[in-house]
Amino acid sequence: MLQSKLFTKTTKEAPADEQSLNAQLLTRAGFVHKTMAGVYTFLPLGLRVLRKIEDIIREEMDKVGQEMLMPSLAPEINWEISGRKDTLSVLFAAKAANDLSTKTNNSSYILNPTHEEIITPIAQKYGLSYKDLPFAIYQIQTKFRNEARPKSGLLRGREFGMKDLYSFHTDEKDLRRFYEEMKDSYTEVFNRLGIGHDTYITIASGGDFTKDYSHEFQTECVTGEDEVHICDECHLGINKEVLAKQSSCPACGNKKLRMIKASEVGNIFPLNTKFSQAFNYYYTDLKGQPQIVYMGSYGIGPSRLLGVIAEKFADSKGLVWPKAIAPFKVHLLSLQKDKEAEAIYQKLTKAGVEVLFDDRDLGAGEKFADADLIGCPYRLVVSAKTLDQDSVELKERTETKSTLVKISQIIKELK
Amino acid sequence: MLQSKLFTKTTKEAPADEQSLNAQLLTRAGFVHKTMAGVYTFLPLGLRVLRKIEDIIREEMDKVGQEMLMPSLAPEINWEISGRKDTLSVLFAAKAANDLSTKTNNSSYILNPTHEEIITPIAQKYGLSYKDLPFAIYQIQTKFRNEARPKSGLLRGREFGMKDLYSFHTDEKDLRRFYEEMKDSYTEVFNRLGIGHDTYITIASGGDFTKDYSHEFQTECVTGEDEVHICDECHLGINKEVLAKQSSCPACGNKKLRMIKASEVGNIFPLNTKFSQAFNYYYTDLKGQPQIVYMGSYGIGPSRLLGVIAEKFADSKGLVWPKAIAPFKVHLLSLQKDKEAEAIYQKLTKAGVEVLFDDRDLGAGEKFADADLIGCPYRLVVSAKTLDQDSVELKERTETKSTLVKISQIIKELK
Repeated sequence: MLQSKLFTKTTKEAPADEQSLNAQLLTRAGFVHKTMAGVYTFLPLGLRVLRKIEDIIREEMDKVGQEMLMPSLAPEINWEISGRKDTLSVLFAAKAANDLSTKTNNSSYILNPTHEEIITPIAQKYGLSYKDLPFAIYQIQTKFRNEARPKSGLLRGREFGMKDLYSFHTDEKDLRRFYEEMKDSYTEVFNRLGIGHDTYITIASGGDFTKDYSHEFQTECVTGEDEVHICDECHLGINKEVLAKQSSCPACGNKKLRMIKASEVGNIFPLNTKFSQAFNYYYTDLKGQPQIVYMGSYGIGPSRLLGVIAEKFADSKGLVWPKAIAPFKVHLLSLQKDKEAEAIYQKLTKAGVEVLFDDRDLGAGEKFADADLIGCPYRLVVSAKTLDQDSVELKERTETKSTLVKISQIIKELK
Repeated sequence: MLQSKLFTKTTKEAPADEQSLNAQLLTRAGFVHKTMAGVYTFLPLGLRVLRKIEDIIREEMDKVGQEMLMPSLAPEINWEISGRKDTLSVLFAAKAANDLSTKTNNSSYILNPTHEEIITPIAQKYGLSYKDLPFAIYQIQTKFRNEARPKSGLLRGREFGMKDLYSFHTDEKDLRRFYEEMKDSYTEVFNRLGIGHDTYITIASGGDFTKDYSHEFQTECVTGEDEVHICDECHLGINKEVLAKQSSCPACGNKKLRMIKASEVGNIFPLNTKFSQAFNYYYTDLKGQPQIVYMGSYGIGPSRLLGVIAEKFADSKGLVWPKAIAPFKVHLLSLQKDKEAEAIYQKLTKAGVEVLFDDRDLGAGEKFADADLIGCPYRLVVSAKTLDQDSVELKERTETKSTLVKISQIIKELK
């Protein structure tokens, strides 16, 4: 893409009303625009990263479940049936905005902050026999949560993206089997996103969902809002609430735990029969007898992940994207050698390399600063000096040293 | 995909509460599930079609604009600035659903039914110089409209998908130039979707947006809710409201118009300076003087399109999908020859052909009925009879006659 055609621009200053590092950097670099507190627009660069995160999640989820798309609006009755309408403080209702009453429908609906209340009746419509079970369904969809004071940028929004998968089982044993499989699926997602090594499966209390333990996936991050205690014997995390009840690793008994700052990037819950009981969801077993369905739910927030990854890898100069989700693989800078740089841009693009080509009429300093701020993995500089040696200057965003690469060797180097 | 693994099922009966043909068929075939009036869940088959429609739209829009993603929640102030907060009867507000008041934020937000109020301040942030103009930005995003009595299935929902593109210009002349280009872009979208021949650019009154004429794209459909008058000289439509003011084709004066039933599949509006005036959006011209920005907006609803296409091509047996957007290209039916059919399924899948393989333990009658109801373009039947001749039976969904095709020739036939 030609940077001169990108309608966004970078800014030197962070917006005064952003306290979080992720929102400051992502706003300065032109990835997001704050529409209101806790609600962001994804600009072209930000949307490219978001889609790549979603695609990785989708590829892994397609191995275990079927994708569908549920709505954001729900009838209130579904939330009354589950008992959560009057207990979830973050619930938004949608109502007619004005009193043009002859034309307006005055009912009130819920804006789903999670979709157990929607998926359960759908599963119940189709999955009524033991022959239909188990199955898993997921979606990548917007969630709405009426957070009182959203100050963490993309990490805790009033509106945000979520991949939520739900599984349905004949009994608890089968739910547990699938639940363990999902740990592996999630681990693969975080590996592919470039944060696998620093992400810990973390034992957490189940909150509203279950009295059993559930699990969070916590990624180490110095600016993270959570404290997680790591057992290096098991490569396992234990969260604060669980550790308040016992002082050692629940898996191996190890008492030498180390505390890290971390951000949650996923969670999995054995819902057991909470929602199937509420919605009266029974299947017919082999003997023709009705049996309660066991359920699990499994969440990863793509927009939150984008924010966590932005914060985790950022340095003093700006964003540093892992290769798998960078908006472009290469940031190509022309230092007053537009024609020669254009030829290299065409060559790379034809070879299938994603390139952001800075063809703007700006000085070298501004171009270098923008490349660091935007954070593509590779920077290529074309200047009179490099062309004298039939070369371009190649630098990885994570390195300080650059190397000269012959123009004829660029594709080999970058493919 | 193995049909035995698809968690949805078809039904013989249409739901009693659905009046529209699109919702009846799409529900029976397992493409959608009604979560409430005017609000649908896209099940796996429906989501496949929706994504293909969106991808075609996206490819064409990428040629003229940059994709981004705006939020559904908006601050009320933006809708007050435009003056539409108290005039749009379909406006939803989002408010705290319950009175857990110590934890809850009690503000009220608008759920965007269209995004002029969101895009204008964003464009204004970046596009302030004549050098930045023109530019165009689009998104594919959910819209919310509080329709009083939504009875048309996917054609008029309270929540639905929309591709909305917005363009920004230095003057009216440049807006008009781009507006004409968008007619061509839309024509290409409808051509690719398989409805180009029956879709008419239709002169419409501008409604709330402009006193000038705007344009609708109307697709001929016997169950359509609109009446459009066609001038066959110009291949142009004229809508009822415009024709009430003049009795001939505005383009050529032709008085011999024929009336068709049609469904709207897109619309384009020259917004001119309505929103730039409201938001005080001026750019700086070559001489350093402030000048008002001209805007256009251009909409296509992917979920509505899915409903229109379902209705337009349906026959008495079920859905009939155009090849470009069918959930699968081929519906492969095994009539008690699962092993042989499985080999053909593997062969086609490896060759990149999208196949729904009916491997279920059901009779031929049920399998044929489901294939007709689901409406994939090609049906392949594998039975003892066809295997005797080293063949499969191939039938197009739009044809009544089938042919025998040698197994060795299948890929050649279907690629």
